[in-house]
Amino acid sequence: MSISTRSFTVNGKTYTPPASPVVVICLDGSADEYLDATMAHDRMPNLKKMTLAGYRGMVRGALPSFTNVNNSSIVTGVTPAVHGICGNFFYDTNRKEEVMMNSSEYLRAETILAAAANAGRKVAVVTAKEKLRDILSHKMTGIAFSAEKANQAQEATHGIGNVETTLNLKTPAIYSADASLFVLRAGVALIEQGLGDFLYLSLTDYMQHTYAPEDEPSLAFYEAIDHELGRLLALGAVIGATADHGMNAKQKADGSPNVLFIETMLTEQFGNGFRVICPITDPYVKHHGALGSYVAVHLPEGVDETAVSDWLQGQPGITEVHNKARAVHLLEQPEDRIGDLIVLSARDVVVGRTPAHHDLSALDSGLRSHGGRYEEMVPLLISHPLTAAYRSKALGDPRNFDVFDFTVNGTHHN
Amino acid sequence: MSISTRSFTVNGKTYTPPASPVVVICLDGSADEYLDATMAHDRMPNLKKMTLAGYRGMVRGALPSFTNVNNSSIVTGVTPAVHGICGNFFYDTNRKEEVMMNSSEYLRAETILAAAANAGRKVAVVTAKEKLRDILSHKMTGIAFSAEKANQAQEATHGIGNVETTLNLKTPAIYSADASLFVLRAGVALIEQGLGDFLYLSLTDYMQHTYAPEDEPSLAFYEAIDHELGRLLALGAVIGATADHGMNAKQKADGSPNVLFIETMLTEQFGNGFRVICPITDPYVKHHGALGSYVAVHLPEGVDETAVSDWLQGQPGITEVHNKARAVHLLEQPEDRIGDLIVLSARDVVVGRTPAHHDLSALDSGLRSHGGRYEEMVPLLISHPLTAAYRSKALGDPRNFDVFDFTVNGTHHN
Ligand SMILES: [Zn+2]
Ligand SMILES: [Zn+2]
Repeated sequence: MSISTRSFTVNGKTYTPPASPVVVICLDGSADEYLDATMAHDRMPNLKKMTLAGYRGMVRGALPSFTNVNNSSIVTGVTPAVHGICGNFFYDTNRKEEVMMNSSEYLRAETILAAAANAGRKVAVVTAKEKLRDILSHKMTGIAFSAEKANQAQEATHGIGNVETTLNLKTPAIYSADASLFVLRAGVALIEQGLGDFLYLSLTDYMQHTYAPEDEPSLAFYEAIDHELGRLLALGAVIGATADHGMNAKQKADGSPNVLFIETMLTEQFGNGFRVICPITDPYVKHHGALGSYVAVHLPEGVDETAVSDWLQGQPGITEVHNKARAVHLLEQPEDRIGDLIVLSARDVVVGRTPAHHDLSALDSGLRSHGGRYEEMVPLLISHPLTAAYRSKALGDPRNFDVFDFTVNGTHHN
Repeated sequence: MSISTRSFTVNGKTYTPPASPVVVICLDGSADEYLDATMAHDRMPNLKKMTLAGYRGMVRGALPSFTNVNNSSIVTGVTPAVHGICGNFFYDTNRKEEVMMNSSEYLRAETILAAAANAGRKVAVVTAKEKLRDILSHKMTGIAFSAEKANQAQEATHGIGNVETTLNLKTPAIYSADASLFVLRAGVALIEQGLGDFLYLSLTDYMQHTYAPEDEPSLAFYEAIDHELGRLLALGAVIGATADHGMNAKQKADGSPNVLFIETMLTEQFGNGFRVICPITDPYVKHHGALGSYVAVHLPEGVDETAVSDWLQGQPGITEVHNKARAVHLLEQPEDRIGDLIVLSARDVVVGRTPAHHDLSALDSGLRSHGGRYEEMVPLLISHPLTAAYRSKALGDPRNFDVFDFTVNGTHHN
């Protein structure tokens, strides 16, 4: 059956897909250094071939540089100010509760995936973590399942049942390289079996939280990713890949986590009533202990915002403090979900709430994490040559959430 | 004659050099993408070998991400707050004049080079641009000359005469790839002839201002750099290389420069009397038109600093505005040389003074420049394996101006 090339428009942008399978991949946590290291060892021959034929460059992600935020941007093509997802977790000032933001009820924009399905593409979404599935498959007709719960997917609810048998793949453990590799292997199988021709494959960053670029398990992981890229290319896919965020070591010289507990610090300095939200918080704490380089601060009544902001800005390890107006303007945040102050920390520093809120013993090894400015820049990898217009666009300030635009609209293919 | 391994201490840090030639290179303007692109084409085999045996990672440069500032940090091992060089150009509030900062009279720290010479090393400095020579060779016994004026070097003043004959090299044109390659070739010749065993080689960024990473002239340039790296490795050198800053396109979709003229904007909004200093300003304007992503603002008497700061912070394309206290604390600036406000612009935006202050017609092609936050992160490349202590240091927030420390103190050699 032929593949639909009908144009569709979503969030103000028109996409005109090629007649080939389109595969967009979020290489979760892939700081460029991971590619550099593995390529230097000649262990990513397919990526090398792909970027020599196509494009490799750096793009700017959305802030906070967290997984949900950037996955939401990638599938909608817009900033968090527009789509509304600014973390895994936020304080709902109307309901006066701290709630997870993993549900599509919080998503304020349509997705490129749903629109592509409506335009006749066979859309399939595979994500490593179940938490992302609801947002990514919002209003979408097609296949959507997670590696984490692959064996629970049902035809009626996931667009596919019996995943393990149908795709000949075993449901992996979530804290593993296999959780991500499963996603890519499922993508290959879906195309091979004619079940999808417009794919979004979203990996998980457990490996990057755990290993530095030169560590052998990381090299082996990227080598295995490369193998799947080769299979996708062999199937004639037009591939665009990017990352949701980079990754940096956030530890002291002795290997212990380099943490500023912001709620504790503010309480000591200014008194009670501060509420610090760590938007990295999610049910999967093993790899980062809910510690990232970005928190939101809700101020108690009557405290002087400028005094708090100036004081925070003067603390070693804090690199940016923004009030609400600036967080909206500069950080592209949704005004109603971010509290009063946004705090970002240095390349090697994470910000937390209070010691009691973070179980550091859950960390496997040294702390590697993300969320701040130093994990903002990520690679963009495109399998086919860019058109002149998109080569020029790549010389501006391209974003990671332009990856569907570059892949679908920006390439010369057959 | 044997090479001195005597320890020396400078600016609070002790260096214990190996008995091999030490070569530290500033690959001016080398955003990591330049290495990625050329390596993908298999045109940097020696760098590949070198980093597989040694180390490759990203380090944070000094701000502003300009050449003089970072060269001064590299040769002193300290921040601009300590060494005092915060641009090519500044407004001297005592003398009430705008003056160049190219002279060592403005340098407030001792150099590693001078200290190494005092400890018995044969020190040689070769820089592409003459403007850097005075600062780099401050109080130093040894050889120091520029590619630009190689044929004018004198034994009495430069520690070497007849450079062209002695080293068998022709003085290159300053706006050329050869200006940088000359520096590396001179380094090779100096070691070969026993004239130097502790070298600092500082290139120029004309090529990076002019070409994007995938442009053939850039690929050929990095390939030629790689050839000289191979010759240095063959001579047994311990090599550390980094960059002073990265490089980004700063242009609109039509290829025209993406400039905010800050003095003009402030005058229109708040009236006369503003003085905006572009610290990138130097006699070499052909490649950047004195436009970078960082300016200093001197406010007129009586204007409300907070009002100006808030207004600037709200302008599209402006990413950071810091008052003096924050510029000292956060940007590591010398308090007395920076004016009242520091302004940084976006990845694709440069800030200028007034249209009359910038000759855009001098630009060869599209504008590529640096100076801001998005040119802060640069590669660190070390030829020999790092010790455990320095592998751990590399997992923190290593700086480009730690390159002598990593190269001299951080490697296993022999
Ligand atoms: Zn992630
Ligand atoms: Zn430079």
